[in-house]
Amino acid sequence: MIIDKLYDAAHKKSPVCVGLDPQYSYLPQYLKDKDWSVGEKIFEYNKKIVDASIEDAGCYKLQIACYEALGLEGLECFAKSLKYIREKGAIAISDIKRGDISSTAKQYAIGHFTGDFETDFITVNAYMGEDAVSPYYEFLEKDKGMFILIKTSNPSSGEIQDLKLGESTVYQEMGKLVSSWGEAFVGNCGFSSIGAVVGLTYPKEFEVVKQIMPKTFFLIPGYGAQGGTGKDIAEIFKDDICGVVNSSRGIITAHKNKTEGEDFDVCVNQAVKDMKEDILSWL
Amino acid sequence: MIIDKLYDAAHKKSPVCVGLDPQYSYLPQYLKDKDWSVGEKIFEYNKKIVDASIEDAGCYKLQIACYEALGLEGLECFAKSLKYIREKGAIAISDIKRGDISSTAKQYAIGHFTGDFETDFITVNAYMGEDAVSPYYEFLEKDKGMFILIKTSNPSSGEIQDLKLGESTVYQEMGKLVSSWGEAFVGNCGFSSIGAVVGLTYPKEFEVVKQIMPKTFFLIPGYGAQGGTGKDIAEIFKDDICGVVNSSRGIITAHKNKTEGEDFDVCVNQAVKDMKEDILSWL
Repeated sequence: MIIDKLYDAAHKKSPVCVGLDPQYSYLPQYLKDKDWSVGEKIFEYNKKIVDASIEDAGCYKLQIACYEALGLEGLECFAKSLKYIREKGAIAISDIKRGDISSTAKQYAIGHFTGDFETDFITVNAYMGEDAVSPYYEFLEKDKGMFILIKTSNPSSGEIQDLKLGESTVYQEMGKLVSSWGEAFVGNCGFSSIGAVVGLTYPKEFEVVKQIMPKTFFLIPGYGAQGGTGKDIAEIFKDDICGVVNSSRGIITAHKNKTEGEDFDVCVNQAVKDMKEDILSWL
Repeated sequence: MIIDKLYDAAHKKSPVCVGLDPQYSYLPQYLKDKDWSVGEKIFEYNKKIVDASIEDAGCYKLQIACYEALGLEGLECFAKSLKYIREKGAIAISDIKRGDISSTAKQYAIGHFTGDFETDFITVNAYMGEDAVSPYYEFLEKDKGMFILIKTSNPSSGEIQDLKLGESTVYQEMGKLVSSWGEAFVGNCGFSSIGAVVGLTYPKEFEVVKQIMPKTFFLIPGYGAQGGTGKDIAEIFKDDICGVVNSSRGIITAHKNKTEGEDFDVCVNQAVKDMKEDILSWL
């Protein structure tokens, strides 16, 4: 199961998930100066980031919005970047946060687990209930996985997710549902191929979620630019590395104000090593 | 404001929203036989459906999952179909159900309100709160709009949406939030450019939502294949046409078992007219 591969990578390499969320302004000047399309420049940027981080990073997460923003050539770059990562033997997470009725979810499954945009994991929004999730089950048996939104890292996440239902909350109920759906897909590592997205920015809520979802592996946004630290991560991991921690700007713009040249990947490499050290030093 | 244009179209043409959710199997044989790519065949199919329905349909909704399922050529077809609809002066709704933190939502806004995938309305999932919505506000002032998921039409929609919060429910709280966000974007027609998705399959819940959201225009799935009828719609509309009603399979596969030829558009035209009549006869 794909979750066993991710669990291994998180332990053997690190729980660092490199967020490939490129924007044109992030590119070093030497790439901007190339006589290429924007899509080609960003693909080259992504490739160099992958090469500079693959020894230390457990996985890569691609925020599809950054590619959709560039239209068709952006999505071509998205497809090529996924292919590059997976051909290198690394694990790709497509951060697409799709969620729709079952016939539509089936189309998304085809779109992101096969063909041009084939990936290893997708992120899913289950506001519509299990119909938005069950069409992916058949793919979980074919070495695919997903992370479902529980308690997100952003400031307004509480508006819906923290609403109180007696002793519980909406995000806790979402956690219970996702945990039950995941039971059928638990791998050898003890975690399910149905994981959960929980932000590092809400440590108290994370503690509650962990108790509700003991077999769930986490995709954790909120490190670095959003305020989360290595110590926060250690408090979540405690006995075992039970998730991967995403950082995007902290890694892919590490060269800013340092170099605009081809050697920008040295800064990227250092940023990944620093993040890995920041996390592992507390464990 | 775009909501005024949609309101006008719903009144002058009809509240019928044609769902351009193509699958290869839906195509008449004569198109399957063409020596074209799948994307080109589906674009031709969409064009003929648009031409056959534009006199009677208030708008078009494109489910992006059906295009993502076909990879890059599917998304090229998506882009061309949107362009075709809008150049004909009709209103396009991209059913993308995106929802993410503000920096990401900004990228989606650029991706779907400008460039290759430019559309008039998008659908949005606000499980993450207002952060997932506010980046679109600046585009609402530039003649764009959105529909946010409140109570969806699918069988499992209640798992999260119907959870009880004292006297209220999650979908009602979502309705109150969306209604308050929409206050700033009310057009001359009295409705906001921030609309709501509520399924025809839950009439009791729809009644409650309408009371919570008096200035909200609705995108209504659930007609036809999912069980909703013209009478159900009339009970929602009552005094005024306050929404558009989507039908996909009922219209775009109307030729099945009838013709496999170029004249398939006659069946599509009749299906749209029948649906229009089915709704208007009750008003």
